[in-house]
Amino acid sequence: MARALQLAALGLYSTSPNPRVGCVIVRDGEIVGEGWHQKAGEPHAEVHALRMAGDKARSATAYVTLEPCSHHGRTPPCAEGLINAGVARVVGACSDPNPLVAGRGYNMLRDAGIEVITPCLEAQAIEINRGFMQRMSSGLPLVRIKLAQSLDGRTAMASGESQWITGPQARADVQRLRARSCAIITGADSVLIDNPSMTVRPAETGIEQEQRLWRQPLRVIIDGQQRLSGNEAIFSQAGDILLAQLGDERPLQRAVELGSLSQWSSPQAEDTGRHIDLTALLQHLAQLGCNEVLVESGAQLAGAFVAAGLADELVLYCAPTLLGSNARPLLSLGLDSMNEQIRWQWNDVRMVGNDLKMVLSRTSET
Amino acid sequence: MARALQLAALGLYSTSPNPRVGCVIVRDGEIVGEGWHQKAGEPHAEVHALRMAGDKARSATAYVTLEPCSHHGRTPPCAEGLINAGVARVVGACSDPNPLVAGRGYNMLRDAGIEVITPCLEAQAIEINRGFMQRMSSGLPLVRIKLAQSLDGRTAMASGESQWITGPQARADVQRLRARSCAIITGADSVLIDNPSMTVRPAETGIEQEQRLWRQPLRVIIDGQQRLSGNEAIFSQAGDILLAQLGDERPLQRAVELGSLSQWSSPQAEDTGRHIDLTALLQHLAQLGCNEVLVESGAQLAGAFVAAGLADELVLYCAPTLLGSNARPLLSLGLDSMNEQIRWQWNDVRMVGNDLKMVLSRTSET
Repeated sequence: MARALQLAALGLYSTSPNPRVGCVIVRDGEIVGEGWHQKAGEPHAEVHALRMAGDKARSATAYVTLEPCSHHGRTPPCAEGLINAGVARVVGACSDPNPLVAGRGYNMLRDAGIEVITPCLEAQAIEINRGFMQRMSSGLPLVRIKLAQSLDGRTAMASGESQWITGPQARADVQRLRARSCAIITGADSVLIDNPSMTVRPAETGIEQEQRLWRQPLRVIIDGQQRLSGNEAIFSQAGDILLAQLGDERPLQRAVELGSLSQWSSPQAEDTGRHIDLTALLQHLAQLGCNEVLVESGAQLAGAFVAAGLADELVLYCAPTLLGSNARPLLSLGLDSMNEQIRWQWNDVRMVGNDLKMVLSRTSET
Repeated sequence: MARALQLAALGLYSTSPNPRVGCVIVRDGEIVGEGWHQKAGEPHAEVHALRMAGDKARSATAYVTLEPCSHHGRTPPCAEGLINAGVARVVGACSDPNPLVAGRGYNMLRDAGIEVITPCLEAQAIEINRGFMQRMSSGLPLVRIKLAQSLDGRTAMASGESQWITGPQARADVQRLRARSCAIITGADSVLIDNPSMTVRPAETGIEQEQRLWRQPLRVIIDGQQRLSGNEAIFSQAGDILLAQLGDERPLQRAVELGSLSQWSSPQAEDTGRHIDLTALLQHLAQLGCNEVLVESGAQLAGAFVAAGLADELVLYCAPTLLGSNARPLLSLGLDSMNEQIRWQWNDVRMVGNDLKMVLSRTSET
């Protein structure tokens, strides 16, 4: 199963909206087949592994990192494939929360007389598909907030000057975060101030050729006050853009050069005056098949996601520097007393070049 | 030498103003004597080790973590002791920058026909006595700034509410920082707002009995505006207090209950209006024999030490929580552009309970 999880991880940058899945087929203690799902519409992990195993799949054990599918989608059900190949046993890491599967895959196998053992390394298997799992169970993608900060929690000088707080390795790591994301959300503020492209630059990711992304993530720009003209750099880069606006759509002066521009009109958020309804936006992105979205924005928008309880993960790159107390805050977040503090739990802390990368997820503890 | 360094570390909480020193005597591949310096005025490490070795010191090798002293202080010179004991070889980790020694120790040994090998594990040996080394070479103690912060670099809510950002393990770690410090510096602000005792509570340190501190660190209170009355909690705790004031001494209404209160009058800092001259204060503390001082204060005073370039080490305990952008900054530090940023280098990053402890030292890089 550990090998199957390694294989699943090869799909980190390419399987969405599908989950990342790996499969290993073992007979007589020997691996006779293995595969991973590469891209939506292409064969699932089990199909690759069964093809490689051929006749040797008969009476073998198949290790799969996610419950085999039971429905006819763009490909035939994998449970059927395993049955037809004559495997004796299936070890499944976890269940598939997709309402089209949700236990039916394992049941189909059991009904065919195949021994099913599950779960197995479940936590690891869920971790690699947390976004997919969350979209299936809650209708919302996993929201990851990425911020580059100083030791004193500042992201830029008061003037907006911020290049560069963190080093090249941290910035390459951000490229990998972008590459694994289905969408990147930013705000009109950031577009106007930093004029970023928000694209993945494959050469900078350090991702091996084998795993090189097949797609640019959707770039989502929140422009509630319709301040963008369409002449900003972000509109001239390859890849699709979704412009999230309030009220009536206003056509931009020019379209995206290499990709397509779509516009989405937000209902007005109930409690926050004239602001985009972030929950509605995330629901819309989930419907578009987004499993993981990355928020790369200024303190206002990042703070709004956190304040609304919509941020699932914080990814903080902390540089060993002090920017001082006039510099910009990490997040705009108005809290008054200690019992309003927003607590997180540590997922990972490691050095990335000369910066400290801290990953935290939301905790239910208050 | 590794063993000798372990022994030296046993003196972490007790040797000041002297350095921490360990000594191991080896003959025919066997340890025949070992010792560590426990407390100023008591025997040095070499004396303990030679006593234990007795006749076996003859023709043996002595490993010492610091150059043996060559002068008559409160104890006779250790170099003489090693010569009289007839050791054949001395391996010294590093030199003693004390102008009373500074090479004379090793020379005295060489002149007596003893083979001297040095340096050996020099970086580790210097690290354990960084404060002592700095005091000897620059006349200033090592200044360590300790702060407890949130992920967004905040130390308290705007109201001042801050108990507790970090968990009990981090607070116990702070007790150990206090215990190894010769002095703890705080400001009148902190005394008035938090009413702390600033003492070491031995039971909370988790320090083994063997190493239990013989002394409370000197508590230094900076009260430039003479706002303290003497009725604050800090004055009723065991241990000495130094009150740093501007201009004429003003007697407090009551003295320290268990210890002594001294008052120090600062020259007025040239560039900062009516403020204590922090450099002069640190020089005074060095003259009192302080090797390591710990600053536990609010953002103003901590920021002043950093801005003046007097902070050698930052010890940041980061709790997995967000306190928001209205909360108090880590340091009051007015910087306007990225080229004014103050860069540090990572010394250590580790979890302490559920908080992240980050230790950084000043870097010459800008």
